Amino acid sequence: MPPRRREDAPPKTHRAITLRLTLSDRVALGPGKADLLQAIRETGSIAASGRRMGMSYQRAHDLVSALNADFRAPLIETVTGGTRGGGARLSPLGEEVLAAFRDVERQAEIATAERLGWLRGMLAG
Amino acid sequence: MPPRRREDAPPKTHRAITLRLTLSDRVALGPGKADLLQAIRETGSIAASGRRMGMSYQRAHDLVSALNADFRAPLIETVTGGTRGGGARLSPLGEEVLAAFRDVERQAEIATAERLGWLRGMLAG
Repeated sequence: MPPRRREDAPPKTHRAITLRLTLSDRVALGPGKADLLQAIRETGSIAASGRRMGMSYQRAHDLVSALNADFRAPLIETVTGGTRGGGARLSPLGEEVLAAFRDVERQAEIATAERLGWLRGMLAG
Repeated sequence: MPPRRREDAPPKTHRAITLRLTLSDRVALGPGKADLLQAIRETGSIAASGRRMGMSYQRAHDLVSALNADFRAPLIETVTGGTRGGGARLSPLGEEVLAAFRDVERQAEIATAERLGWLRGMLAG
């Protein structure tokens, strides 16, 4: 039997392209932050998102703090209390930033598909 | 006075986009390998290329071995002896692979320039 993955662990990336955007001297946006934004969007929880990505809560929380400080407005809003005991969600700007990054990934994949196919054809046996 | 860089050290990347291509389950091609190919092309030496990139000779040599094993034909040819005491250069396939990677980078930058500009405009301060 093949080893089982944890149910909440995503498959290792099989993206053809991994993209990191340099936004300024100190701010970059890459797959780690994008996947964290997406996990928060899907789980509504920083802790669950960290677990899904195999990172500590502290690391996930630090990335959230950085993302919120680096942009004009917070990308992630935390919600305290309530029936679900608090949580996190993307702000409208967070939704836009995540969508822009995914769009950039798609556009880069389309733009580079032909060369990528050629490179794959040049691999050994 | 600003701190001086070593003459042979390249500036830290200011590329808007850093791209890593997944070519197979085990082979990826990213800025490290591409810059190493380019350095070998420009310096004619694995040792000098390693120094330029701030990596040990062993690390540079291991990357060269991996690149040569991963593709249909070696990307780097080593030249022993001769008036310059040996050296390294790109094979025809090495030239093509490097050119393809740089082309992919350019195409990705063009395809994503607009969204990248928008993301930069959303930064704080």
